Amino acid sequence: MADKTVKIGLVGLGTVGCGVAKILLEDCDYIKARTGIKLELTRIVDVDTEKQRPIKLPAGILTNDLNALLNDKDIQIGIELVGGTKISKDIQLKMLAAGKDVITANKALLAEHGNELYAAAHKADKCIAFEASCAGGIPIISAIRTGLAGNRIKAIYGIVNGTCNYILTNMTSKNESFRAALKQAQEKGYAEADPTLDIGGGDSAHKLAILSSISFGCEILPEDIFVEGIENTDISDIRYGGEMGYTLKLLAIGQRTDEGKIFLRVHPSFVASESALARVDGPFNAVSIFGHAVGQTMFYGRGAGMMPTASAVVADIIDVAMGNSKKLFKHLTLEPRSKTACYISKIDELVSRFYIRLRVSDKPGVFAQICTILAKHEISLSGVLQHEEHNTNNVVPAIVITHQTQQKKITAALADFEKLEIVKSKPVCIRIVDIPQDSD
Amino acid sequence: MADKTVKIGLVGLGTVGCGVAKILLEDCDYIKARTGIKLELTRIVDVDTEKQRPIKLPAGILTNDLNALLNDKDIQIGIELVGGTKISKDIQLKMLAAGKDVITANKALLAEHGNELYAAAHKADKCIAFEASCAGGIPIISAIRTGLAGNRIKAIYGIVNGTCNYILTNMTSKNESFRAALKQAQEKGYAEADPTLDIGGGDSAHKLAILSSISFGCEILPEDIFVEGIENTDISDIRYGGEMGYTLKLLAIGQRTDEGKIFLRVHPSFVASESALARVDGPFNAVSIFGHAVGQTMFYGRGAGMMPTASAVVADIIDVAMGNSKKLFKHLTLEPRSKTACYISKIDELVSRFYIRLRVSDKPGVFAQICTILAKHEISLSGVLQHEEHNTNNVVPAIVITHQTQQKKITAALADFEKLEIVKSKPVCIRIVDIPQDSD
Repeated sequence: MADKTVKIGLVGLGTVGCGVAKILLEDCDYIKARTGIKLELTRIVDVDTEKQRPIKLPAGILTNDLNALLNDKDIQIGIELVGGTKISKDIQLKMLAAGKDVITANKALLAEHGNELYAAAHKADKCIAFEASCAGGIPIISAIRTGLAGNRIKAIYGIVNGTCNYILTNMTSKNESFRAALKQAQEKGYAEADPTLDIGGGDSAHKLAILSSISFGCEILPEDIFVEGIENTDISDIRYGGEMGYTLKLLAIGQRTDEGKIFLRVHPSFVASESALARVDGPFNAVSIFGHAVGQTMFYGRGAGMMPTASAVVADIIDVAMGNSKKLFKHLTLEPRSKTACYISKIDELVSRFYIRLRVSDKPGVFAQICTILAKHEISLSGVLQHEEHNTNNVVPAIVITHQTQQKKITAALADFEKLEIVKSKPVCIRIVDIPQDSD
Repeated sequence: MADKTVKIGLVGLGTVGCGVAKILLEDCDYIKARTGIKLELTRIVDVDTEKQRPIKLPAGILTNDLNALLNDKDIQIGIELVGGTKISKDIQLKMLAAGKDVITANKALLAEHGNELYAAAHKADKCIAFEASCAGGIPIISAIRTGLAGNRIKAIYGIVNGTCNYILTNMTSKNESFRAALKQAQEKGYAEADPTLDIGGGDSAHKLAILSSISFGCEILPEDIFVEGIENTDISDIRYGGEMGYTLKLLAIGQRTDEGKIFLRVHPSFVASESALARVDGPFNAVSIFGHAVGQTMFYGRGAGMMPTASAVVADIIDVAMGNSKKLFKHLTLEPRSKTACYISKIDELVSRFYIRLRVSDKPGVFAQICTILAKHEISLSGVLQHEEHNTNNVVPAIVITHQTQQKKITAALADFEKLEIVKSKPVCIRIVDIPQDSD
């Protein structure tokens, strides 16, 4: 195999785009020595060709005309880093039609329209590579599809949204309110001005859809995933959970039973404070994958940012340029649900432990009433916490930890609690996630 | 690309060999759906064809005649799981000469004779794949060579020997002596009857040679690596270190400076107890890789065992069968030292912090003498610990933590300490490894 040159076009010169351009311009020789391929960035397309950017580009490379990229037959790989789900989809389809392999970091687009795009790529005999779509610099797509390829994947537990993890870490370590921690994240550039997609859990759901699709081998859409965000997180629950040995994280969880039942969910989760995921702090991401042969693995790194995400895009460029991505992409058989034996479970079927906090009147017989309702729904207690409080309104928090039970029983119990005269506000309920111990 | 069948021969039906056979026999259809390739295990060679093994093999597949594998032209991939460095080398060379790609888990062989084997493979236009040689089920070779391919690797910090980590974890958590912890590891099957290669650090050095070769792109031999094992670890140092915020791990460390200087070492290391590596417990492995673009990453999982190691071997089989390994292998340019600008540093050049424990007479002026020697060698103190002890021989431990200084200054100071009348036994010195904080 003689050394070869592969020409590359990039659409979207934002933060990550600049990072990708920087690596391609500065490390071209280094990559060639390791792969035998000279990567040549020959065209960059962006609507704004005037803006000052943190890198120096070769003269004439930047244009606002997408056709300059599409019509250049020498460009083999097109990178879409525009974001959003409308224009970006059009750009990807046009690049495929123009005979280019596509690389993208666009999790929202792939989660919502992946199968349409994958079909277009298969039809054009091209591939779409998307390492950068999940968990930034962590090579998690590659790990699932190649490094763990001999495994039947049983479960994924991921901290895949750096914004939420930054906020929850600050709430936990600095005893800050959600609002204060969000404001700080925005000031630090870790949260958008409109943070809805992050704090509402939607971004994590997009990533879980992609990770679970490739892990479990069937089409998974964002609407298949039960989603709760962190926007209503009260600092008191982080404190009380901490006292009981738990740390609050926004987890994206995909599980497949041996019978092919798939559980998919994103929600605030109490995990044991001594577990590895509990200790993933700040803007970092981590994904723990359980395979039938390998047991527990965990992959840790930066989930966002200019250079970490660029690192993942460049890994894809190399893989596509070497022809390796395309072979695996051929077998990206994400069967439509109707054609597979896989069954997506409803959240009501979930069996979990739960943390429940009630604000109750401080008077005799309160715990008896709580316990009567739990008993009625066959929910068994595993822990109780009630602090003495010296406030004036005679209302105190009562916290209950349950043994494993079904979500639908908890939902019914919560509705019953709300009807009690002694319960003074809507109960808070947080799932406790017991990550399996792969121990000896 | 039509679906194809790839035939495989396996030499060495021990624990890992049985795991590989199990996956190939049980998950053939599953792997075919994901890759388009039918993997067919058609020949197994082992000296013992009678032994009872935990898997059921197809009739007639097992033989003690290596030629049955070598002469079968249909077998494209040969897996060597014999171990050792003599017979295994011969087997690999014969498989290459017979036109087969080779897969191995043999770290000792690759670390000692890698370049000779790689040259034979290049000459035969075949490849050698070795994911299973380092850190068992963790796909760390693949991560370095593909997932992080856009990065210049700056540093590797690895816990890559499960035996040592199991022993040190038990010493730390159960306050056990080295001998007691080793005995328990042997009873649990985590340590060999002759544990020298593990506890002496040699096995970690073999893995570091492989990981740093592919990370830094030049030939690295075991003798380039400074090695200290854990066999002289005293439980008191684990306790005193713990009081000062450190946890003892056997780390394999490779670092490259921007000027191309390479530091390679395996030794007991105090790491901050709140760091991720400090929390890797029992037989687990973890490797933290720092790339110039991606920043800090960490890969965690089981470093040994039947199915985890088999998981890595099967990942290699798939990669080789798809033709991907071979392309990367072509560019496994591990230049002999003479041809590269890389410079392997001597341990004397190391700059580190150090933990020193002296057993000293309990009388006035002792600390003055210690500090005078440190000052003479321009070593600055950052911490001191001396407990009141109520023993009868009037000898107490005095512990000193230094600021950053050169190894050669410490070595000279230790020699001076030994000459002091007040110092009652050979000083203990443990390096403190400050893993860079990739924080914000």
